[in-house]
Amino acid sequence: MQNFVLHNPTTILFGTDTVKNIGAETAAFGKKILLVYGKNSIKKNGIYDRVKDALEKQSLEIIEHGGVQSNPLLSHVRKGIAKAREANTEVIVAVGGGSVIDSAKAISAGALVDHDVWQFFKGKKSIKKTLPLTCVLTLAAAGSEMNGGMVITHDEKKHKFGVGNRLLNPKVSILDPTLTYSVPPDYTAYGAVDAIAHILEFYFTTTDPSTPVQDRFMEGLVINIMESCEKVLADPEDYQGRADLMWCATLALNGWTAAGLGMVGFPMHMIEHSLSALYNVAHGAGLSIVVPGWMRYQAERNPKKFAQFADRVFGISGENPKNAALQGIERLKEWFVSVKSPVSLSEASIPAQEISSISENALSLAKMWRLKEYKKENIMEILKLCC
Amino acid sequence: MQNFVLHNPTTILFGTDTVKNIGAETAAFGKKILLVYGKNSIKKNGIYDRVKDALEKQSLEIIEHGGVQSNPLLSHVRKGIAKAREANTEVIVAVGGGSVIDSAKAISAGALVDHDVWQFFKGKKSIKKTLPLTCVLTLAAAGSEMNGGMVITHDEKKHKFGVGNRLLNPKVSILDPTLTYSVPPDYTAYGAVDAIAHILEFYFTTTDPSTPVQDRFMEGLVINIMESCEKVLADPEDYQGRADLMWCATLALNGWTAAGLGMVGFPMHMIEHSLSALYNVAHGAGLSIVVPGWMRYQAERNPKKFAQFADRVFGISGENPKNAALQGIERLKEWFVSVKSPVSLSEASIPAQEISSISENALSLAKMWRLKEYKKENIMEILKLCC
Repeated sequence: MQNFVLHNPTTILFGTDTVKNIGAETAAFGKKILLVYGKNSIKKNGIYDRVKDALEKQSLEIIEHGGVQSNPLLSHVRKGIAKAREANTEVIVAVGGGSVIDSAKAISAGALVDHDVWQFFKGKKSIKKTLPLTCVLTLAAAGSEMNGGMVITHDEKKHKFGVGNRLLNPKVSILDPTLTYSVPPDYTAYGAVDAIAHILEFYFTTTDPSTPVQDRFMEGLVINIMESCEKVLADPEDYQGRADLMWCATLALNGWTAAGLGMVGFPMHMIEHSLSALYNVAHGAGLSIVVPGWMRYQAERNPKKFAQFADRVFGISGENPKNAALQGIERLKEWFVSVKSPVSLSEASIPAQEISSISENALSLAKMWRLKEYKKENIMEILKLCC
Repeated sequence: MQNFVLHNPTTILFGTDTVKNIGAETAAFGKKILLVYGKNSIKKNGIYDRVKDALEKQSLEIIEHGGVQSNPLLSHVRKGIAKAREANTEVIVAVGGGSVIDSAKAISAGALVDHDVWQFFKGKKSIKKTLPLTCVLTLAAAGSEMNGGMVITHDEKKHKFGVGNRLLNPKVSILDPTLTYSVPPDYTAYGAVDAIAHILEFYFTTTDPSTPVQDRFMEGLVINIMESCEKVLADPEDYQGRADLMWCATLALNGWTAAGLGMVGFPMHMIEHSLSALYNVAHGAGLSIVVPGWMRYQAERNPKKFAQFADRVFGISGENPKNAALQGIERLKEWFVSVKSPVSLSEASIPAQEISSISENALSLAKMWRLKEYKKENIMEILKLCC
């Protein structure tokens, strides 16, 4: 285990009928609110009204900033920052999934500085303060509700860049599994894939050979995500399934699994970010394309950890670690297929001829994230395994 | 999964050579320090000097309160409170294991009120504020370093009572596995047993039939505790083993495993508290006596979860859940024997004739903790299974 510092200040209110607390939890930080949300789904399913009611009961002054799209755009964040500045916003409230929460985080940091918010993403400026943020989560996927990360896409450059800072942790996040009852099957599955991918990034990229505590925690989460996803695809209103899936997705990226792993990379996300930035593929769908290909690429070189994964998650063991590893990867891929998440570029209408230009795009992120072992030819090789 | 609120504000600094940070971490909260520690072991092994150096580098004013014993006594806590009041202490620093940290917590709460600190333990008063507390952990066992619990024993009444309050969470805890290199084999094993018992209390007493996420997390921890304990008993300076054991013991009781379980009881601790209060048995040693007996008592009545435990932790399955459950319990007991922790009252020189008076003592705690299903005859029956 490597040395680490762990401090997660976010308070989680988890469970059915917890939405009503968003008013009081938010009012603790101020009266002037910027309410950030996505497209129309929360208006259709009634979540918008429930949040609005709870906020209005506390007599909060609400400015709205709806319309966040998935793979959220810098231009929309900038508009939110302008609104927050103009209204002297004291607290940001995010109602949505990772895209909405990430946009709200970017606004919370950008509203308090004179320079453009993209400077944070380019690593030119560091975040020193943020507006307090409270969240109502509506999608089990990104994990942004309990961490200090955010990912935003530059409209023109098509760069999908991320920033991590403890000041970006929400003060409070409300996780009510019933709010995800109306998430359609495809996005339910993409969310599960996203959460699994977060775990696998840590699990397979730690360079520490001895992390048994974290390993078992992560293996358990992967099994639970698959089982709970299957339950909710069979019955979208299975409360326990929705609750397990939601909590697993939060745990996948709240720092608990990563504590002690030392340096980790996010190479699968690095490649996927190019797919979603260039082709507007849903993030989870992009990941289910990239993950098996990346795993095969790595397992060919160093199968040991992949064999452990195959054994503990799928019960596949055998004398030859590489065979076991590849069987495990195949089983994971089959699971992605079973939940109807795409597993090849062609399924997402991404032309194989464009692998070179996709790799070029991914390379800029590889440099940003200091993933030095990923040259253009390595990324191309991985993408060929995703065909 | 049940509704829950989760907020763990403690910052963990984990790893080798982190002790030097205790000075700066403490100075952030004030200059006047009460330094709480146990008997002479930290002076012999050099930890005392390292902590003292780090504190003095920050020019902190230090009042000492050494001499905390295991199963820490109220009388000693009261003396610490008197010292803290007289010196206008601003921060408490605890250097030790659970007994020292619990004593420091009791002082941190008692120093700020006019009434006697025992009122908190009797449930007559509730904690409204505490002095900030920083910790240097020297024993992997109790988990007090990252939670808001404390347990103190009343000298005369021999009541070992506990209190939980988020204000008791340490601000910062430093977990350096190398500080546990000098822990002798018996106390290393008792610490591992204590951590396992914390997990099993949650695992077996939740009334929620569907907690798969928490279950797998806890099963993984039990396996890891056993594996890492075996490693460090074979080689006391096995860093990875000490690190894994230390982190597992913290995770066993920091609220992460319990989130979503709903109401849980601590019946094994309830019974053990009587053993350690009446016979001054080491807490972990008392637990390895009580745990298998309690498990057998419960498994006879409702074997399902015990069979799951046997399957996932020891790989024991079979058509008859009760048989599998009992085999799993036997394996756990054998493991306690293998690490030389006692598994019967007689091994701890506790006379079986006194089961009735022990049960009487435990009953007072059963009432305090509202463990209504534990009448004197049930406790006696469990204790008979511990012979």
